[in-house]
Amino acid sequence: MSKVVKSLKEAIRNAGLKDGMTVSFHHHLRNGDYVLNMVMDEIADLGIKDLTVNASSIFDVHAPILNHIENNVVTQILCNYMASGVGRAISTGIMEKPVQFRTHGGRPSDIALGRTPIDVAFIAVPAADNMGNASGKFGPSACGSLGYAVADAMFAKKVIVITDNLMPYPLPDWAISETYVDYVVTVDAIGDPKGIVSGTTKITRDPVGLVMASYAAQVIKHSGLLKDGFSFQTGAGGASLAAASFLKEIMLKEKIRGSFGLGGITGYMVEMLEAGCFEKLMDVQCFDLKAVESIRSNPNHIEINALQYASPAFKSAVVDSLDVVILGATEIDTDFNVNVHTDSNGYIMGGSGGHSDAAAGSKLCMIIAPMFRARLPIVRDRVHCVSTPGQDIDVLVTQGGIAVNPKNAELTERLKAAGLPILDIRALKEKTEAITGTPDPLRKGDRAVAQIVSRYGEPLDTIYNVVD
Amino acid sequence: MSKVVKSLKEAIRNAGLKDGMTVSFHHHLRNGDYVLNMVMDEIADLGIKDLTVNASSIFDVHAPILNHIENNVVTQILCNYMASGVGRAISTGIMEKPVQFRTHGGRPSDIALGRTPIDVAFIAVPAADNMGNASGKFGPSACGSLGYAVADAMFAKKVIVITDNLMPYPLPDWAISETYVDYVVTVDAIGDPKGIVSGTTKITRDPVGLVMASYAAQVIKHSGLLKDGFSFQTGAGGASLAAASFLKEIMLKEKIRGSFGLGGITGYMVEMLEAGCFEKLMDVQCFDLKAVESIRSNPNHIEINALQYASPAFKSAVVDSLDVVILGATEIDTDFNVNVHTDSNGYIMGGSGGHSDAAAGSKLCMIIAPMFRARLPIVRDRVHCVSTPGQDIDVLVTQGGIAVNPKNAELTERLKAAGLPILDIRALKEKTEAITGTPDPLRKGDRAVAQIVSRYGEPLDTIYNVVD
Repeated sequence: MSKVVKSLKEAIRNAGLKDGMTVSFHHHLRNGDYVLNMVMDEIADLGIKDLTVNASSIFDVHAPILNHIENNVVTQILCNYMASGVGRAISTGIMEKPVQFRTHGGRPSDIALGRTPIDVAFIAVPAADNMGNASGKFGPSACGSLGYAVADAMFAKKVIVITDNLMPYPLPDWAISETYVDYVVTVDAIGDPKGIVSGTTKITRDPVGLVMASYAAQVIKHSGLLKDGFSFQTGAGGASLAAASFLKEIMLKEKIRGSFGLGGITGYMVEMLEAGCFEKLMDVQCFDLKAVESIRSNPNHIEINALQYASPAFKSAVVDSLDVVILGATEIDTDFNVNVHTDSNGYIMGGSGGHSDAAAGSKLCMIIAPMFRARLPIVRDRVHCVSTPGQDIDVLVTQGGIAVNPKNAELTERLKAAGLPILDIRALKEKTEAITGTPDPLRKGDRAVAQIVSRYGEPLDTIYNVVD
Repeated sequence: MSKVVKSLKEAIRNAGLKDGMTVSFHHHLRNGDYVLNMVMDEIADLGIKDLTVNASSIFDVHAPILNHIENNVVTQILCNYMASGVGRAISTGIMEKPVQFRTHGGRPSDIALGRTPIDVAFIAVPAADNMGNASGKFGPSACGSLGYAVADAMFAKKVIVITDNLMPYPLPDWAISETYVDYVVTVDAIGDPKGIVSGTTKITRDPVGLVMASYAAQVIKHSGLLKDGFSFQTGAGGASLAAASFLKEIMLKEKIRGSFGLGGITGYMVEMLEAGCFEKLMDVQCFDLKAVESIRSNPNHIEINALQYASPAFKSAVVDSLDVVILGATEIDTDFNVNVHTDSNGYIMGGSGGHSDAAAGSKLCMIIAPMFRARLPIVRDRVHCVSTPGQDIDVLVTQGGIAVNPKNAELTERLKAAGLPILDIRALKEKTEAITGTPDPLRKGDRAVAQIVSRYGEPLDTIYNVVD
């Protein structure tokens, strides 16, 4: 018995894919992914139309999807993140049905609850056996964790695993179990390793970034949360990594032993694990080669899936036990609502990913962002769109000062007592506009190009087309 | 945030348990289990009645359930195995509703498909953290794999984890994820380690057992299946282990490298792994301390759950890739139907466990059993009850000769060519009866005491009360 079929086309036919259905993809191969394009080309070739693509994220390597939109092969997109190349095209209003943006926790929730059923999941995997057990840890296209693909495997009606590395049965340490897989297809390459993970992720050397990072580490130090058992999530951006670097120094100096680091994991978090800052890393996605090597070999570096990471549909998720998260923003408004979906001109260039989930789950959610980018201020009266509601944001750190959400009276006092430059978010806005001038008011079009769905499956906001 | 509640009673109340509901238990603590009795006593104390108990197996340590049956706290039992003490009482007809026997693969199928919904799962675990991540590998009551508890956790409406070993969050290497757990309760002890696993499992020294074991190894050797990539399952009985021992010698001598050993795992299978006979062990249940130590420390000794092991409800299970399984029987009939539920007098003293599942999945299913026990012949015209249908049984090995199911013409020729003592199953029956005499015909009562449900969820046979 074997589930290996001869070609992708045969697997698509066997799975019974038809007009109007939903197909799904994950984004662990990031900007190196060959599989989404490969599959959509085969589907187009088979003459199948009017598909919904539910992809955990869309990168610019997926730009050929724009042709499939033009040819009505793809008529709707659901994703948690959309890079700026594809995003800019969507923002001009090329699709009749708005894109639906979810969060990394909300997507698997909505899949599990049957709100966004998947007919056929196409799951690119760096290693699989002939029965469909699959892992991201082995092979030339190794990406580490396969956390975002697991809900697709568990709940899709048909599941096709696509690999360039068929290993002997039984494959150990699977992220996806054979119990969920219908067909296995082998291809020459599922991706370009150079685009899948970066060689290294680097700490910022930019002076503004270093000031923000230093403030961020001080906020954590004085928050009352930095003690044995501390847990932490941060992104792969240069300033976030610098904040982690300062935090590491404090933890080692004060001999604080944290419990876990969470999220998309970089080599920098691996170094913190190895230095004893954390007992465990809980890894839903690996950002660089060092993280991939660590998840393969270090039993304290643990793969989790998106349900476990952040899904509110189940009894709990790891984000519910998280102390501190550092997140970014393209805009934040005076009610602390954060935009990570569009740039300041309104063009789609991102998405929540795990932003809203970590913000909702953590005890302290900190945004670090410069006061302005390209002379456009970060703090606005109202964000273009709400990616994460202000009620879940605790602190904004900029190089020009730190604004604490007024709901956190005790934290404000702690940080003031520590001598940190605390100011009202409206004062921070005025201080910024004294440098940049007042930005022009937004000019939104009247056509909805995307709906933002909260992690709980509720409508959160709408993104309109951009009027130049 | 924490899911730890103060007492079992509080957890039962919070879970909303009411008259007429279904509660579930697993059997990894075997005859050392304290938890089923502890929970049922609390439930009785709360005055809750008319419950269905869905337990993966009932051991004789669970005899207090008979009192709860008498008091109408328990009005139905679903299980995959029932030891002879409780079984004998059930066989006298003390319950109005017949016991439903399933298989280790069929039980999680029927749970997953909603055929046997569980209201509250009570899951005894040797280690848990405050959010419910749970493992069988650590702690004073370590039992190794928690494979049979996973479907209960995934599909029960409410899940209560009960442990005597609360560990720091996040517990690594969980069998059950926090995503499924509602409440965590700590107790002094979940079981008696002496009853949970045996110190060692021993190979038979009985001459009859050794003859059967030798024949069994020869059947495998000449079956055409014993080559690189070979996979194997056997039980913990003395003769089965002796067969594994002979098989090991052959594999080492002929330098055959198998792919995996499967099933309930003994120290003997661990030795085969360590000697290089297999690349991996796939372990749904640990039978002895050596297996527990190995699953904790050897990454090639892999925990699987009952869905992965044997469930026909999903896309595939490991049994579907199994080459050879050695199984037992209390009776086998001339159509090769096997009884493992009752003794030859008709009293319940066992159950399918994984018998039917491994038989259905494997390429070669071999029964080893002596020609007679206590002067009662094994081969019958008709078994008391069909536990595993004859169509899934390939070979019967006894000390008096080997009977091959007539459907296997090629195998018969291979074994004859190898000089093995092959004879028709009817001839084997006559040969046995020449020694034992013809057994008295069965005297079944007219009251159904148990229904046997096939691994596919279909009625397979009925067990009637015993008339003395």
